[in-house]
Amino acid sequence: MPFVKATALSCANIAFIKYWGRKDHLLRLPLNSSISMNLDNATTVTTVAFDEALPADEIEIGGEPASPHAARRVSEHLDRIRALAGITARARVASRNSFPMGAGIASSASAFAALTVAACASAGLQLDERALTILARQGSGSACRSIPAGFVEWHTGDTSDESFAESIAPPDHWDLRDLIAIVQTEHKEVGSSKGHEIAGPSPFAAARLAEAERALPVVRVAILARDFTTFGEEAEQEAIRMHAVAMTSRPSVLYWSPETVRIMHAVRQWRAEGLEAYFSIDAGANVHVLCQGKDAPYVEAALHALLDVREVLANRPGPGTQLVEHHLF
Amino acid sequence: MPFVKATALSCANIAFIKYWGRKDHLLRLPLNSSISMNLDNATTVTTVAFDEALPADEIEIGGEPASPHAARRVSEHLDRIRALAGITARARVASRNSFPMGAGIASSASAFAALTVAACASAGLQLDERALTILARQGSGSACRSIPAGFVEWHTGDTSDESFAESIAPPDHWDLRDLIAIVQTEHKEVGSSKGHEIAGPSPFAAARLAEAERALPVVRVAILARDFTTFGEEAEQEAIRMHAVAMTSRPSVLYWSPETVRIMHAVRQWRAEGLEAYFSIDAGANVHVLCQGKDAPYVEAALHALLDVREVLANRPGPGTQLVEHHLF
Repeated sequence: MPFVKATALSCANIAFIKYWGRKDHLLRLPLNSSISMNLDNATTVTTVAFDEALPADEIEIGGEPASPHAARRVSEHLDRIRALAGITARARVASRNSFPMGAGIASSASAFAALTVAACASAGLQLDERALTILARQGSGSACRSIPAGFVEWHTGDTSDESFAESIAPPDHWDLRDLIAIVQTEHKEVGSSKGHEIAGPSPFAAARLAEAERALPVVRVAILARDFTTFGEEAEQEAIRMHAVAMTSRPSVLYWSPETVRIMHAVRQWRAEGLEAYFSIDAGANVHVLCQGKDAPYVEAALHALLDVREVLANRPGPGTQLVEHHLF
Repeated sequence: MPFVKATALSCANIAFIKYWGRKDHLLRLPLNSSISMNLDNATTVTTVAFDEALPADEIEIGGEPASPHAARRVSEHLDRIRALAGITARARVASRNSFPMGAGIASSASAFAALTVAACASAGLQLDERALTILARQGSGSACRSIPAGFVEWHTGDTSDESFAESIAPPDHWDLRDLIAIVQTEHKEVGSSKGHEIAGPSPFAAARLAEAERALPVVRVAILARDFTTFGEEAEQEAIRMHAVAMTSRPSVLYWSPETVRIMHAVRQWRAEGLEAYFSIDAGANVHVLCQGKDAPYVEAALHALLDVREVLANRPGPGTQLVEHHLF
């Protein structure tokens, strides 16, 4: 059977209950379940074409040959798909992000979600959504959350089959916005993969896990009820807890830059003044400012007025990973 | 018996194992024992004169009448001393700091230590050092650590009499330096007194307490052995733990400013480059950069080269609180 060329579009996601620390590094089983939202304006497009004639995988990211480290991670993920499809063909892969890589926006999530869906399609492998999330998870944990649409919960699970993601509400359920203040585009010093490995040695790891388990149903219910205040307070505290674990790990990792802290204070100041917004921060220096659609123009204007905010990437709840017609090669 | 006019000089102190949270707010019994160093260049001078002719306490701080809140706290402390001395006379009090108040240098520590020693002398009350620390503690917890000389341990204790401070090494034991980078002289939003009250609700409070108890003897032994690496790593991690508790409390308190974080990163960068320094941070935005005497000129120059460092206050281990001849009135 000849292979087809397939292209997938995937959104990055922002987690309100974070993925931080794993109970199984090889299978990428997370310590706790997490909840996220897809970001409609932070996307990856990936084209995959398996080809019997290729001597090796050819992987291009952002118009450049992938680094040896990235290429190996992609090939290992293609190996999982080759094994499932019972094929040995190498693949040509091209991928492009709409946002800067490695700066606190989860580029590996949208990248591995798009890669999973495009590669399965090229290989002729028919998997349901749950199976796709389990497969994507093995490439990059949070990638499983970028497969379903809108607001998504990733169940921790005790086995690989139990650790899957599913949508808890579609994109149009709630006009929540994530305005990402891009304060730093240099590559972060410590990737989130490394972060998961150091999460254990923090003296706060056990308490963070217990809090994540407490907060998860609170955040889920708040999303379903569109209760922004409960949602925002829990999301902001969860982000702080994750970073407190990172900075108390050994080695200690401080993802925040001076600009991160400036925006954190600004968001709290706006809130005190009646403009309701909350922050979340992933494994990087950028700040995700969460607000309701009605307040988004005001929050965006206030962010632009701050020094050191280079760019604001405004996001609404995004769709799940989907095949598209426009190929990259 | 006529009262004498008495003046005391007291050093602020920097805690390496922090005082954060109390088991008894009225008696100011701390959750955990702490260890600090007096700062010879951050001092308070306080003159006290009890006078039967005064209708009320007259309290001046930094050349201005004290605020109602500060005046009340001073008068309540004078009441303790009046009760012990069996007198009813009101007092005239004047106090001056060598450093800005309320900006992360523990001004209440040196203020209440100096007030305690000067007021006892003016009232003719003869107390030994341990009793003075117990008395000072009731005015402001960390004030007890400014009474003894050099490196000081404050024992938590289960009763007021057990919660005292004592020197563990004299000032000349070790040429440790604390270079305080003054980044913000506005009054902090949340005083440390309030901080102690919110320490409980953090999900990390119990783990922080256990870590403080683990680290206390490690820091004590490192000071006695002049083991700078062990000392610095423990002190820096303890400071981060204290701030992690503050920022995960409800309400969440973030004492750090953008400049705080800039200096934290800079200190770690210098360390990676071979200039061994560590940071500590009290309940404010200023950063205490700890180094050995041999490296102090280099660290001080590096601090001055950073943007946003308004002033560097260089400290060596300081003496205990002592009576001096030069009165403020």
